[in-house]
Amino acid sequence: MKKYYTEEAWNIIENGFDPSMHESSESIFSIGNGKMGQRAMFEEYYSGPSLEGSYIAGVYYPDKTRVGWWKNGYPEYFAKVLNSPNWLGIDIQIGSERLDLYTCKVREFERKLDMQHALLSRKFIAVFPSGKEIEVQTERFLSRVDDEIGCIRYHVKARNFNDTITCTTSVNGDVKNKDANYDQTFWDPISETITGNRAFVAVRTKKLGFEVVAGFTATYSKNGTPIQLVPSAVKKEKFAAFSVATAIAEGETFEVQKYVSVVSSMYYSDAQLKDACNQNIDTALRKGYTQLRNEHALAWEQLWEQCDIEIKGDIAAQQAIRFNILQLNQTYTGKDHRLNIGPKGFTGEKYGGSTYWDTEAYCIPFYLGTNHQKVARQLLQYRYNQLPKAIENAAKLGFTKGAALYPMVTMNGEECHNEWEITFEEIHRNGAIAYAIYNYIQYTGDHSYLWEGGTEVLIAIARFWSQRIHWSEAKKQFVMHGVTGPNEYENNVNNNWYTNYIATWCMQYATQAIAEVKEQYPTAYKALVLKTALDETKELAEWKHICENMYYPMDADLGIFLQQEGYLDKEQQLASSLNPKERPINQHWSWDRILRSCFIKQADVLQGLYFFEDQFDTATLKRNFDFYEPRTVHESSLSPCVHAILAAKLGYEQKAYEMYLRTSRLDLDDYNHEVHEGLHITSMAGTWMSVVQGFGGLRVRNGKLHFEPMIPTQWESFSFSIRFRGKVVKATISKQLLQVELLTGDSIEISVKGNSHTLKQGETVNISHHHDTAQNNE
Amino acid sequence: MKKYYTEEAWNIIENGFDPSMHESSESIFSIGNGKMGQRAMFEEYYSGPSLEGSYIAGVYYPDKTRVGWWKNGYPEYFAKVLNSPNWLGIDIQIGSERLDLYTCKVREFERKLDMQHALLSRKFIAVFPSGKEIEVQTERFLSRVDDEIGCIRYHVKARNFNDTITCTTSVNGDVKNKDANYDQTFWDPISETITGNRAFVAVRTKKLGFEVVAGFTATYSKNGTPIQLVPSAVKKEKFAAFSVATAIAEGETFEVQKYVSVVSSMYYSDAQLKDACNQNIDTALRKGYTQLRNEHALAWEQLWEQCDIEIKGDIAAQQAIRFNILQLNQTYTGKDHRLNIGPKGFTGEKYGGSTYWDTEAYCIPFYLGTNHQKVARQLLQYRYNQLPKAIENAAKLGFTKGAALYPMVTMNGEECHNEWEITFEEIHRNGAIAYAIYNYIQYTGDHSYLWEGGTEVLIAIARFWSQRIHWSEAKKQFVMHGVTGPNEYENNVNNNWYTNYIATWCMQYATQAIAEVKEQYPTAYKALVLKTALDETKELAEWKHICENMYYPMDADLGIFLQQEGYLDKEQQLASSLNPKERPINQHWSWDRILRSCFIKQADVLQGLYFFEDQFDTATLKRNFDFYEPRTVHESSLSPCVHAILAAKLGYEQKAYEMYLRTSRLDLDDYNHEVHEGLHITSMAGTWMSVVQGFGGLRVRNGKLHFEPMIPTQWESFSFSIRFRGKVVKATISKQLLQVELLTGDSIEISVKGNSHTLKQGETVNISHHHDTAQNNE
Repeated sequence: MKKYYTEEAWNIIENGFDPSMHESSESIFSIGNGKMGQRAMFEEYYSGPSLEGSYIAGVYYPDKTRVGWWKNGYPEYFAKVLNSPNWLGIDIQIGSERLDLYTCKVREFERKLDMQHALLSRKFIAVFPSGKEIEVQTERFLSRVDDEIGCIRYHVKARNFNDTITCTTSVNGDVKNKDANYDQTFWDPISETITGNRAFVAVRTKKLGFEVVAGFTATYSKNGTPIQLVPSAVKKEKFAAFSVATAIAEGETFEVQKYVSVVSSMYYSDAQLKDACNQNIDTALRKGYTQLRNEHALAWEQLWEQCDIEIKGDIAAQQAIRFNILQLNQTYTGKDHRLNIGPKGFTGEKYGGSTYWDTEAYCIPFYLGTNHQKVARQLLQYRYNQLPKAIENAAKLGFTKGAALYPMVTMNGEECHNEWEITFEEIHRNGAIAYAIYNYIQYTGDHSYLWEGGTEVLIAIARFWSQRIHWSEAKKQFVMHGVTGPNEYENNVNNNWYTNYIATWCMQYATQAIAEVKEQYPTAYKALVLKTALDETKELAEWKHICENMYYPMDADLGIFLQQEGYLDKEQQLASSLNPKERPINQHWSWDRILRSCFIKQADVLQGLYFFEDQFDTATLKRNFDFYEPRTVHESSLSPCVHAILAAKLGYEQKAYEMYLRTSRLDLDDYNHEVHEGLHITSMAGTWMSVVQGFGGLRVRNGKLHFEPMIPTQWESFSFSIRFRGKVVKATISKQLLQVELLTGDSIEISVKGNSHTLKQGETVNISHHHDTAQNNE
Repeated sequence: MKKYYTEEAWNIIENGFDPSMHESSESIFSIGNGKMGQRAMFEEYYSGPSLEGSYIAGVYYPDKTRVGWWKNGYPEYFAKVLNSPNWLGIDIQIGSERLDLYTCKVREFERKLDMQHALLSRKFIAVFPSGKEIEVQTERFLSRVDDEIGCIRYHVKARNFNDTITCTTSVNGDVKNKDANYDQTFWDPISETITGNRAFVAVRTKKLGFEVVAGFTATYSKNGTPIQLVPSAVKKEKFAAFSVATAIAEGETFEVQKYVSVVSSMYYSDAQLKDACNQNIDTALRKGYTQLRNEHALAWEQLWEQCDIEIKGDIAAQQAIRFNILQLNQTYTGKDHRLNIGPKGFTGEKYGGSTYWDTEAYCIPFYLGTNHQKVARQLLQYRYNQLPKAIENAAKLGFTKGAALYPMVTMNGEECHNEWEITFEEIHRNGAIAYAIYNYIQYTGDHSYLWEGGTEVLIAIARFWSQRIHWSEAKKQFVMHGVTGPNEYENNVNNNWYTNYIATWCMQYATQAIAEVKEQYPTAYKALVLKTALDETKELAEWKHICENMYYPMDADLGIFLQQEGYLDKEQQLASSLNPKERPINQHWSWDRILRSCFIKQADVLQGLYFFEDQFDTATLKRNFDFYEPRTVHESSLSPCVHAILAAKLGYEQKAYEMYLRTSRLDLDDYNHEVHEGLHITSMAGTWMSVVQGFGGLRVRNGKLHFEPMIPTQWESFSFSIRFRGKVVKATISKQLLQVELLTGDSIEISVKGNSHTLKQGETVNISHHHDTAQNNE
């Protein structure tokens, strides 16, 4: 853990320049608008260590799978998030000296992310070897309004000299991925074009043929007054630039405004790309920097109105939750159902830019609670569109009759992960995808999704489970062998409780969905039966038979569900007994030792209890939490939030707060020494859940919001707004009171600790939320 | 399966040239002398597909480990068998046309491996595009007497032209491994030297700095008469050659004799290498081709006297068993305890050139039965020398106090395999290493090895098991979790019966060995206790406690040992129910499906019953064989032999013969479509075991040879010689009789079907071996 950034409610600030922190800051200060994402590399030349990353949503590279020992069924490629043309370039030269913060002396450096407006700015004084000093101020944003436009304002002041300033603005497609095998490049050149004051680079990916055009123009001013300069053009393969030079005297300022557009063949035919890019530059020039910036800032302010969380009395927690909310909104906007949320979003290469079950388990609740329901529905649609690939994926593994296995990692629906114990065995992901459908409908009441795709997905998933489960003659029950649960510190186990449970739940929910569609949408039902070749009598009977005779490992003495069969055969130890020097164990223990140990990476049985909380009494939740949490090492970024929510539910305030801290400042304080690789975007949604579902105690039951709030001792109060079926409710929890206000909508009925309350628009209701002392003192 | 080679008792013959079979033939016609090995590439230029391979014992390359997802504890490198300087080169040009069998027309092609003398020869007529025809005869060998010398005789006859023949002889260090990542080279040049008529290339491996000097000279004759030609020298980086040209007229012959020496820094200091190479060439020239050839051939004839197996009435079986015996003797001679037997020996790159548990389980019995006992002892010594590395390996995985885990794959003692389920979990290999010590002493009676290293190894192995096993509170027994048994179609299972059994056996045998050393060699015992810091009281008590309370999975109803806990929970199917189109399943099923199935790759429970046969009654062996063999798919080359031996023991003649066929002609008939990658050297030892232990029914009990012979219906008779404690016994089994003869030694007492017989030298005893009809008719 490292406290490096200044804690402010709305800003992340880096004071002073430390090159060894630069790659971490490149991650932290990332910006994005859902269509493009940009690590915070410098505009000017920088010779120090840097992880370059400019990303374009949906544009990826299927790199050849690399394994030591090939296993039958491995995918041929791994989808990599693709470092794309760098649109930032603004090189500065004073006389013959090039600005390079790695070699210049740097004073009064400040890098700031204005989270309220998603603006990244920087200021510093640089001293060249000659002693010349310049003062620089920069600002950049990726417009949330015009989402193919990025703008930079770069402002230089000569402090102590008269000389020539040379400014070279560029777009550069000659970029590489750090995770490329043997330094391969992924981009082929198409063209470099200079048209008047505009420069364009067109490149194409070597595989899949994604085309990208990055173009820009620049305007200049001196001492605040626009000037016309005649740039000289520079073209190289995959690179186009303009260079201008002008005299600058002591005290004078020079400013360049760079208007960039990056467009991809995700949205245009190859032939249209250049024109589209050009028109975007037209738009940018017409609006000008100030208007573009103001529109962008306003859009963000409006967004915050529906998703902000305010925490009083704990500035670190306040800053962190906003950082998490900002980054989630920078990553995904829900405009395009072909896109999804990679574990690192647009902030790094690790894990590929692909989709994991994180989306269903963590991100969908966030977008449901903070955005229009169509955003979450886009994420469901994404999986619906990939159903044929999921069926193909299952078929490759020997499943038949339209069974679907969604991939562990994907970009276009095809599996691209290549560890057998994950790829083939961590199949509970299929359950999370079904659960997300349930969760969406439960939250929004939008049952139309059942017949507009949802039930088709559910049938395919139920079919998978019914084939994946087999009858054990020895047990005279159905069992499921060879799985990896959410706790990836166990591999290839038999009868993982969570997987068994969610598998039968899927079959039951599919059965229920089929019945509902049959009753409510008979026409859609006929089409569904036709399309899926559903044999209602036979298949549903089979599912029912499995559900009624499924084996669930449990221990009667302890009154707990067993993570998997034989879990109690392990040597039982608590995480608190571990040598702190050996933590995280995944960096210190060999893999077999981790597997043999009882230690749990992230919620497994507890993930099930979180999803299906209402199906268990509190005593059961408590027994399982008390057993499993002390054995959990929380070495996944996805672990703390589920525990925070359950701990809050069980009244374990201290544990809930500890878990919240681990999740919310994971990146800002770099708990795991890896933030330079990118941010943990999907787990950020878990942080939001920790506050809203955890401390806020928010649940949706029978179409109604329920609150069971609590507040950590460290906080004075916290408040959050929640979108629910077209209404917006704001909840403020202070030490004694829950204050609820209906911001949007006529009226709403809510429940607080089991008591109903009706809110009218603009009305504020205060409800006492006394702690149950007995619970709290555990 | 493909019948391609002519079946002769002492020869492997390829008739006619088929370029698509060339790489397979390169494997099949491999030669070696324990110090060098050579695939059967052509001497002359060849532009068709070829897997070049010239190997030098002990010279390897630690290539960077390649994995998709790194697991803690993986080794940094994988030891690759290294394609080394090619010493074969004899290029032929007639006029301006280069001899290339891929582009010339080829007639009357014959490639022949004379197994009795380990001589590879070839003859053919090549027709050049111009219509010129030459007749070529070649012969090569790697001398078994002068084991750093290789010789080639290359004979050309002009059939229908007068022209100039140009002959270029070379050594070429500019070679690559096919399994190199991204086409890397592993050799750096040191020097190329021409001294008079001798040419030398010195190269050094880029890692580890192995140095190799390959040098040669050539003599020429025309029409049978030696001629002096003045060669022109050609030098390039890592390449040195001589070129001679002379007129040749229709009907005339030209012959080159090439004398090569390849020496490595395994045996000389870097400074001595060149001189050593030069002196070897002196020796070769002094002896001349004929003497070198005769000495080599004689050495092989003598070798065959002690290891030949003769099979009458089944030429395919006869050829195959000799091929297997030849290749084993070409691979390992036991002269150097730093060497071992890689799965592909000197015939290909696959699996690295490293040591597996194959050596202990399969090769040691072969060398014990056919060679002086010092050969097998060298193989034990190899593991003893690597004990410090095995301790280091265990320490990396968290084991303490001198526990040793021998590597799954190694060259120098360090682990270099990188699949967690194998590297960390297929730990039964440790048991095989202990078993080999037992087996060696049991066979030879040489108890000295117990105090000269053996017990030290046994203590370290026992310590490993005692730490790897843990107490299950749930079972109130000791258990072993997270292992992979010999059946690699199960991974990460709990309580694999074989591993549990051999683990406690190791602790018991170590205990017994300690007691013996203590009693018999008190001085050695003191040194041993000092070196190993053995706490006799405490550690032995702990081992005893574990052995007495160990859990062994079994099923009382079926009366079988369970391959692992929960095996009967699997869907039970027989291999005979598999769709033949889906076999081998490892080429058709996804890995998870294989893992979940009940199908067994190779003997697992049965491997234990083979090793410890005398600890179980025949009914137990039978119940387990009857249960497991029908579930076994034999998709490892190591599988059939153990089943052949057990089947023979149980009187299942047909099954034994079927299994024997699968193992003995695996490569010659290319059952698995992979012989082009190299030969299955270690499984060849299993073929020998199938005949001697299987059909011959040979066992050693209480220092005495026991025979329980049977003979497959297809055979008239078979005979084998067996070395045993300085004596050589020849057994000939015909339909009714076992004929036993003591070839070497004064007298020996043997047992046949439980009855004792005393043999005197030169005396032949005939013993009837009637079948038990009841057993045979199953």
